[in-house]
Amino acid sequence: MPLENPKSDFSKWYSEVLLRANVVDVRTPVKGANVLLPNGYQIWEGIKSKLNYFFYNTGHQNAYFPIFIPEEFLEREAEHFEGFVPEVAWVTQVGTTKLKQKLALRPTSETIMYHMYAQWINSHADLPLKVNQFCNIIRMDTGETRPLLRDREFQWSEAHTCHVDASDASKQIKESMDIYQGVFDALAISYMTFRRPPHDTFAGADYSIAYDTLLPDGRILQIGTTHNLGQSFSKVFDIKFLDKDGETKLVYQTCYGMSTRVIAAVIALHGDDQGLILPPEFASTQVVLVPITFKKSTEAVIDRVKELEKELMDAGIRVKADFRENYTPGWKFSEWEMLGVPLRIEVGPKDLKNKSVLFVRRDTGEKFSVKDSEVVSKVNELKKEIHKVLLERANNILDELIFDVKTYDDLKKMMNTSRGIGRGNWCGSLNCATKIKEETKATIRGTREDIDETPDGPCIYCEKKGTQMVYFAQSY
Amino acid sequence: MPLENPKSDFSKWYSEVLLRANVVDVRTPVKGANVLLPNGYQIWEGIKSKLNYFFYNTGHQNAYFPIFIPEEFLEREAEHFEGFVPEVAWVTQVGTTKLKQKLALRPTSETIMYHMYAQWINSHADLPLKVNQFCNIIRMDTGETRPLLRDREFQWSEAHTCHVDASDASKQIKESMDIYQGVFDALAISYMTFRRPPHDTFAGADYSIAYDTLLPDGRILQIGTTHNLGQSFSKVFDIKFLDKDGETKLVYQTCYGMSTRVIAAVIALHGDDQGLILPPEFASTQVVLVPITFKKSTEAVIDRVKELEKELMDAGIRVKADFRENYTPGWKFSEWEMLGVPLRIEVGPKDLKNKSVLFVRRDTGEKFSVKDSEVVSKVNELKKEIHKVLLERANNILDELIFDVKTYDDLKKMMNTSRGIGRGNWCGSLNCATKIKEETKATIRGTREDIDETPDGPCIYCEKKGTQMVYFAQSY
Repeated sequence: MPLENPKSDFSKWYSEVLLRANVVDVRTPVKGANVLLPNGYQIWEGIKSKLNYFFYNTGHQNAYFPIFIPEEFLEREAEHFEGFVPEVAWVTQVGTTKLKQKLALRPTSETIMYHMYAQWINSHADLPLKVNQFCNIIRMDTGETRPLLRDREFQWSEAHTCHVDASDASKQIKESMDIYQGVFDALAISYMTFRRPPHDTFAGADYSIAYDTLLPDGRILQIGTTHNLGQSFSKVFDIKFLDKDGETKLVYQTCYGMSTRVIAAVIALHGDDQGLILPPEFASTQVVLVPITFKKSTEAVIDRVKELEKELMDAGIRVKADFRENYTPGWKFSEWEMLGVPLRIEVGPKDLKNKSVLFVRRDTGEKFSVKDSEVVSKVNELKKEIHKVLLERANNILDELIFDVKTYDDLKKMMNTSRGIGRGNWCGSLNCATKIKEETKATIRGTREDIDETPDGPCIYCEKKGTQMVYFAQSY
Repeated sequence: MPLENPKSDFSKWYSEVLLRANVVDVRTPVKGANVLLPNGYQIWEGIKSKLNYFFYNTGHQNAYFPIFIPEEFLEREAEHFEGFVPEVAWVTQVGTTKLKQKLALRPTSETIMYHMYAQWINSHADLPLKVNQFCNIIRMDTGETRPLLRDREFQWSEAHTCHVDASDASKQIKESMDIYQGVFDALAISYMTFRRPPHDTFAGADYSIAYDTLLPDGRILQIGTTHNLGQSFSKVFDIKFLDKDGETKLVYQTCYGMSTRVIAAVIALHGDDQGLILPPEFASTQVVLVPITFKKSTEAVIDRVKELEKELMDAGIRVKADFRENYTPGWKFSEWEMLGVPLRIEVGPKDLKNKSVLFVRRDTGEKFSVKDSEVVSKVNELKKEIHKVLLERANNILDELIFDVKTYDDLKKMMNTSRGIGRGNWCGSLNCATKIKEETKATIRGTREDIDETPDGPCIYCEKKGTQMVYFAQSY
């Protein structure tokens, strides 16, 4: 049974595809704490491995910090902590014994990491310090949860860096943007980079940069953030160093993170009514081989498929041959399509005779014969080609849903019809932002950080001059 | 400043090496919940990657299950749960709101995983099911904690499998033993495989197999376990399938796990008074290049080191060139030795003239010239050779500390002097086991599962006949 079309009923499509494509199972005892199934987990493993590649080349190191954060730590950075308070899960009891000081499960790790950094950093020779951790995060959102989009437990990468001065911290912000661009590009995710307005800045940060993608339902999904923390945490956690000039100074800090939310973007941007379509680099199975057997030729076909499997494997391609009996080829096709395997190769008796095989692309559905001698090179070519097509499609989704909103009416019209992203002018006042959100559900995503844009008119709400060019959209 | 010799004061050596070799930092706010530092984390990453290699080739899949386990789940398997009760961390509060049903943080994941398995398994075609999860585990041991050896939060791999019958489950037990052997061999860890006596079997299991290594202080460290769960959990969690014969049956189950404890074994078995010695496969830096520069020749030496770095990198060797200024070569040597980098290559002006470089092995301290043209092949040769030496040494530690104990006096003597492992006869009674432990601290590790051994005398304690050949030792 095919799925919904994600563009016509995204919400229904999304709930269905998660289980059927082996991504997430929500039938757990605690709402919002779901099982990340093998096909979803492998995407996360791919993201981690891509991040590690960039981290390694830019001098980041991985470590693991405790999940437990004493209440007192969170209170120390009161402003930072405030937003997390209602969502914090507290351990108050061990066995049958009540704890004297209750322990928070990390909603984020600034406090525990910076407590350690203060002990590690003594001199300018210890800087920059760049540490990443992959871990589970607990945010007991009491509102509606949605798998991968809003979970109470999820996985993420959080990198936290320390620097000798503001200029070096700024360079790090740029480096994080490059790293995230590398990851999003590899995943064929279209996105825009914003500097969030002050009212939407991470508590304790000088400013926040965020990466927004657009799901097919026209709603924005934030898929990563980078914060310039300045010295606000180093003041509180006393992270000091002896500089070259002999003076003791506070470090400048940045942090950036990306979570399993990114899996949702991969699924939603590339999927269709047959299931997932995985970017080849992130598919643990890149090619599935399906033998098309008839009584007389079974053995010869099986042998050829085994030969082909070995040939592809030796060429470093991740391949699986589906020899299961009691399943028809058609049933197998549907299953592998649902799971998102980018390329299928069918081998039947006719193909043996013609010394060729049949390729079927998951992204376009195209079928074509490929000569036996050209299979490996064609697979390698298609790995790149499929990635290109996915990225183009994702970019198109984004481009088609950006509208210039010259007036507040334009924005209201956009929000009432298609939903999407409105580009227009804003005076910068919280009052206008609040009114716009109340009246249209659209939030201000901020000014573009990846390209230069200049305002070209008065605020769409209050019509005052002195504006900035920003983007309006409803978000997850 | 060198460390202690691990053989003369293991305890002191161990506490010191953890921080100085960048493995663990215990200066955290919650006792037993430590920071796994980059040099320790990379070993764990290596272990995960090795496990994944074997898991992939044997049809295991990775997934991630929630950390939260409702109280009711744990109560369902009362026998299983009992041992964990005093160590369970309970979340009782979210924000300022008390929870109606408190949530345990997983001390192990049988209950939550099997709740899902019951929903996933319908027919024999769904079996075998082999799922692994890498996750953090919470056991709030109220006694003494010791980094990596006894932590309140640690990382592990837990694989849980379901099978159509007891025979297939038995095969799985064997497969898990092969997988773990592959991992331990790669880590150059010496160990023995035991079937634990009934009184030391995992609660809910038919029998437990465990992998024991011996630390240089003569105490046993359990570094992994495999349990044959039979049908006890499938009964409780109702994991049924429709078999080929049309009957509905309960699955047979196994599970096996290995944790960050293994890092402790790697460190303790291979380390010395200069720090760690990493098996080359698990070193994120396998070769460090140190330029030995003098004013006149600095540039030429630096150029040669850069060239060498590229050459080694292109050959797939993980290499780092240490160009730091303001550090003497000697200081650098000590640092890289402490971190356990298996091979150092020094390049000075003389070497340039001789078209050679100086190799220094971390495992033996040997120094020798290698011709420029032979550097890559020599590094590849030494990667294998160093692994071999580490494994031999570890095997020697184990062999030297196994003693035949013919009588109870032999055991007492052994425990009083060197500590180690006593091999002798036991009647199988819990009473004798308890007395032996009370009087000597030695526990019964069980019968060998990896080799066949037959008893050759009466029980060393009660002197009754009808014995089994077992091993006695004090454990962590």
